[in-house]
Amino acid sequence: MKAAVLHGARDIRIESYRQPELHPGMVMLRSRRVGICGTDLHYYDHGYNATFVPDRPFILGHELTGEVIAVAPDVQVVKAGQRVAVNPARSCGFCDYCKGGQINLCRKTIMLGSASTKPPTDGALAEFLVVRADQCHLLPDDMDDGAGAMMEPLSVALHAVKRAGTVSGKRVLVTGAGTIGLLVAMTARAFGAVPVAVSDLISARRVKAIELGVDVALDPTAHDLRDQVRELTDLGFDMVFEASGAPAALRAAFDLVRPGGTIVQIGTVGTADIPIPVNQLMVREINFRGSMRYGDTFDEAIRLVAAGRVKVQPFINHVFDLDDSVKALQFAADRSVALKVQIQP
Amino acid sequence: MKAAVLHGARDIRIESYRQPELHPGMVMLRSRRVGICGTDLHYYDHGYNATFVPDRPFILGHELTGEVIAVAPDVQVVKAGQRVAVNPARSCGFCDYCKGGQINLCRKTIMLGSASTKPPTDGALAEFLVVRADQCHLLPDDMDDGAGAMMEPLSVALHAVKRAGTVSGKRVLVTGAGTIGLLVAMTARAFGAVPVAVSDLISARRVKAIELGVDVALDPTAHDLRDQVRELTDLGFDMVFEASGAPAALRAAFDLVRPGGTIVQIGTVGTADIPIPVNQLMVREINFRGSMRYGDTFDEAIRLVAAGRVKVQPFINHVFDLDDSVKALQFAADRSVALKVQIQP
Amino acid sequence: MKAAVLHGARDIRIESYRQPELHPGMVMLRSRRVGICGTDLHYYDHGYNATFVPDRPFILGHELTGEVIAVAPDVQVVKAGQRVAVNPARSCGFCDYCKGGQINLCRKTIMLGSASTKPPTDGALAEFLVVRADQCHLLPDDMDDGAGAMMEPLSVALHAVKRAGTVSGKRVLVTGAGTIGLLVAMTARAFGAVPVAVSDLISARRVKAIELGVDVALDPTAHDLRDQVRELTDLGFDMVFEASGAPAALRAAFDLVRPGGTIVQIGTVGTADIPIPVNQLMVREINFRGSMRYGDTFDEAIRLVAAGRVKVQPFINHVFDLDDSVKALQFAADRSVALKVQIQP
Amino acid sequence: MKAAVLHGARDIRIESYRQPELHPGMVMLRSRRVGICGTDLHYYDHGYNATFVPDRPFILGHELTGEVIAVAPDVQVVKAGQRVAVNPARSCGFCDYCKGGQINLCRKTIMLGSASTKPPTDGALAEFLVVRADQCHLLPDDMDDGAGAMMEPLSVALHAVKRAGTVSGKRVLVTGAGTIGLLVAMTARAFGAVPVAVSDLISARRVKAIELGVDVALDPTAHDLRDQVRELTDLGFDMVFEASGAPAALRAAFDLVRPGGTIVQIGTVGTADIPIPVNQLMVREINFRGSMRYGDTFDEAIRLVAAGRVKVQPFINHVFDLDDSVKALQFAADRSVALKVQIQP
Repeated sequence: MKAAVLHGARDIRIESYRQPELHPGMVMLRSRRVGICGTDLHYYDHGYNATFVPDRPFILGHELTGEVIAVAPDVQVVKAGQRVAVNPARSCGFCDYCKGGQINLCRKTIMLGSASTKPPTDGALAEFLVVRADQCHLLPDDMDDGAGAMMEPLSVALHAVKRAGTVSGKRVLVTGAGTIGLLVAMTARAFGAVPVAVSDLISARRVKAIELGVDVALDPTAHDLRDQVRELTDLGFDMVFEASGAPAALRAAFDLVRPGGTIVQIGTVGTADIPIPVNQLMVREINFRGSMRYGDTFDEAIRLVAAGRVKVQPFINHVFDLDDSVKALQFAADRSVALKVQIQP
Repeated sequence: MKAAVLHGARDIRIESYRQPELHPGMVMLRSRRVGICGTDLHYYDHGYNATFVPDRPFILGHELTGEVIAVAPDVQVVKAGQRVAVNPARSCGFCDYCKGGQINLCRKTIMLGSASTKPPTDGALAEFLVVRADQCHLLPDDMDDGAGAMMEPLSVALHAVKRAGTVSGKRVLVTGAGTIGLLVAMTARAFGAVPVAVSDLISARRVKAIELGVDVALDPTAHDLRDQVRELTDLGFDMVFEASGAPAALRAAFDLVRPGGTIVQIGTVGTADIPIPVNQLMVREINFRGSMRYGDTFDEAIRLVAAGRVKVQPFINHVFDLDDSVKALQFAADRSVALKVQIQP
Repeated sequence: MKAAVLHGARDIRIESYRQPELHPGMVMLRSRRVGICGTDLHYYDHGYNATFVPDRPFILGHELTGEVIAVAPDVQVVKAGQRVAVNPARSCGFCDYCKGGQINLCRKTIMLGSASTKPPTDGALAEFLVVRADQCHLLPDDMDDGAGAMMEPLSVALHAVKRAGTVSGKRVLVTGAGTIGLLVAMTARAFGAVPVAVSDLISARRVKAIELGVDVALDPTAHDLRDQVRELTDLGFDMVFEASGAPAALRAAFDLVRPGGTIVQIGTVGTADIPIPVNQLMVREINFRGSMRYGDTFDEAIRLVAAGRVKVQPFINHVFDLDDSVKALQFAADRSVALKVQIQP
Repeated sequence: MKAAVLHGARDIRIESYRQPELHPGMVMLRSRRVGICGTDLHYYDHGYNATFVPDRPFILGHELTGEVIAVAPDVQVVKAGQRVAVNPARSCGFCDYCKGGQINLCRKTIMLGSASTKPPTDGALAEFLVVRADQCHLLPDDMDDGAGAMMEPLSVALHAVKRAGTVSGKRVLVTGAGTIGLLVAMTARAFGAVPVAVSDLISARRVKAIELGVDVALDPTAHDLRDQVRELTDLGFDMVFEASGAPAALRAAFDLVRPGGTIVQIGTVGTADIPIPVNQLMVREINFRGSMRYGDTFDEAIRLVAAGRVKVQPFINHVFDLDDSVKALQFAADRSVALKVQIQP
């Protein structure tokens, strides 16, 4: 089959690749649409991602809509011809985390398009891929392939919102108006958070946020930021989602959250320790929580988008052919213009 | 001052009444708009409400917008001239329930326009009333008196939704499309529930529900009800709000809720025991919870309405003068046409 | 192999039976100790259990300690020679309930020693049995086989306690002082509930409860029951565990639980509807919840018993040989004397 | 009346002081027993505590058993002659935090024996003091004054444990084996945590911890600490209570907590920011929460101690007379020997 294979830093080749085999419990998919995310860009730029160093060439792509081509004889939940969004994280199903409802913490997770396993696990930038049946989530007929491939980043946002507790009726700030930050903001809004504010250094992103329906877009460098916040909410935000990965944004979150409030870290920060005001966290009883990937959120994400509660179409900027994968990655790397770039294998 | 005084069953007189006095911690309000609810109708019809039998004539009315006329010297949170929605339930502030965040369970609660205390506590169908300062919740300038007087029934709905846990992304059914049922449905929808269905025997109410934006309106007598539900959700609803008070609706709720799901009882039922399928509750791990009045929900209700997340204007059918209080009560008694009737003292 | 095979009502035969085969992911166990529970007695008495009617003779027994004899080549979590407690409920691992941490609600669960599947699934009253690797929970060397076979009923109790929320520091009543009721009481006590009361009609059981360390044992027919309760707790119990299955006990629970309190149904009731005071449930905001089997509780149960936090030895009355299985079942049927009867294959 | 009055750093004088007056809603207490805590020592050493600088001499002491001497005419919940433990934090009762069950976050809290208000609020190191009626919690006859004065520090521990969620059955570590750390450990143990480990640099404290019944006492400088922990729990602790205030202990907590686990900060740290591994917090979904004082925990604390679930007597080292207050403070300052020093006015 044809695939976009990562051979090393800035070395992706469109070439012929062994087609994966169907095993019991598995499903063969034709890849119909694949989104590019920050992790893909890291792999492309460096040939690896943090501590995940591939020991052989592999295929990127973990945000996808697929079409079921064939299923193993023991599979009953999907059948050939159906279109599905794919949860790229295959948790083991049997460990304490899996049985306790925290499948995202399963230590045996096999991730599509990732070098977190040895050998790396091939992703969706190819004609075909094979996944376990339960990774497939049926798409309604009126949801297009582009939207289907957004279910993965929307699940990231959805999980982060769940990690905060109940956002409904709460005052919410999202620091960092990139794709994930804006998806968090739009999900919080769809869940009844009021007001929903975002902050971002980049003016174009603040404009985009308002276009998407966010209530307020704040410039974190504004000299009267605290006053602007005070007008929205006297004691601060109930919940702050830190989606920028910037230590300064995290530090500010502690000043902008109200006593008893919650900060959810969702933006990728470096591995270095970051100074935070632990005394404030204690005396103001702040809850500081990490959010990692997602649980079993795909069906809910599909339901929300199908019903128009969350709109993902405005996030999709450009769609490229598989042959233009490199171009797609380069385009996606320009964060000022791109929210979501997709590839159509 | 002038007031609509309840002297007995179907005996409300517009007459002169002693004006209440201002004590420390209290606030004098001019009553600007008062909603009529089912409890008021019970008092009017029977002269009492369940076990609450007044020992002297008193004034009904507990859903209101007031204007602050005067405040006791020790009051700082509101000042003369401000318009406020009023939480009619004055909890004691000091018992274990109050300190534990369950102010609606405070056994010393003093309720406006109610004979739950001896003597009864006068309500808002009068020119003036006096409440404790913390019962007042500031209204924004652009929220009119009619909407302000809806904050009490909206709080009932809001509290019921909170009692269910997190409704966001969940499949929700409301049985009974009266005022509270529809407010619950609209709140659940504003909080991201999907789909939101209501069921009601009365066709006109189902039509109204759809007009208001509910996703599906079900006829509980339809022979294919189960099929209709199965199309919405294969295993049943995550949450059912029983807002009709009808034992048959409650019984059906146990069939329509999914394993692990939650039923919230909010509709007033009689005091007789009602048969429920306890075995189902056990083996399907259903959660059956009561919802009583509201906690400290008024500011959140105001925020939701002010931001347009929940719309209450469509609920207000008619506004009468205080002199026409009896007419207003009679109009409100016709449940087929009236969602919310208000009086303007 | 030798097994105690249920051929019909009151017809258990000790006979030769086909030995189960080892498949991928599975583990072969030698059955070392098997507890008898109420479900087993129902099967023995009637040949079936409620709607679960076996279509061929099968082997009972789902509370067990096993010794690993062999493991499939792909199994890594246990190895030959280890002793394990077995979770008899094999959930599918892949449905929404499994992924959401509610494995006990998985609709594809395969239960050892049960006719809930067709054909029935053989249990542990035999020399050998085969289970999925993740059903095995390693026992520490100093926990004997009898205690190991108590991990299943203790898990039932543990799950019920979890269903109530946090019992620590709470006032708890358990209605019904049978094996499960007393295990719930002892678990609640180990978790810091104070006081822990039980009620039971049978005087001998109340004596046993006090021996085990329960704080108070109440006679539900005492004319001054309400006064006795009021001395323990003025407003009623925070949590009531209904473990008797008697409608009268459930009805009383609604009177003895405090406003805002929780009733957990754990005792098996018939399939007929049971009248409950729904109005009380609503105005006092009572939480009424079912509890079904257990989640992933076995390791926690083992940890609690190994550390001496919960003592299970006092529950084990008699141990019989496999050849005496019928005698064991007959002995277990006498509820006045037996808490837990076990069989040693 | 006679009182121990703080005039400045290391200047406490036993002298005559104006007796407080009884106002509506208030209760006059004779101070019977007062515990000394770290905050008192800060005030004594420096004349102030962090940003709380007294603007006139005042009386320390906020852990106490009192005897009701007189009550205002409107007070019904206690009466003269009763012995009570006192919640020294008087929250306002009416703000959103008070109504929402987070009374410890009330910004209008008036704290006994503290300069957090202007003027400072006199405490219990005197013959008499006046508190609001709801601050009084009735002691059973068989709980002595020393135990009664421990209800405040026990409430600190109890609240911290509640902040962690449900500790029952969980693997718990407490870093810092001072009075609060050990009370947390003992409370967690009484609530069924297993195992309960503490860590402390000081060997004598580790010995004390084991004497009190803690399961394991770890030396944080041990070169094989990780191995010791791994033997207790393969993936780390479910909950870590950081009760030392040492940045190194907090940093270690992030390494010793399991994925999805919770760290509760309860030890007072300086106001400087502390570096923490935010990336770990995110990818391992760690929950980091502050714990501040206590909510409405006194009755529960009394119930736990009265029933013998938590033992506080072993914490009380020495009791001094009011005249020897300075001696008591000096004795308390030696953390190697003193867990709790009390004064008997």
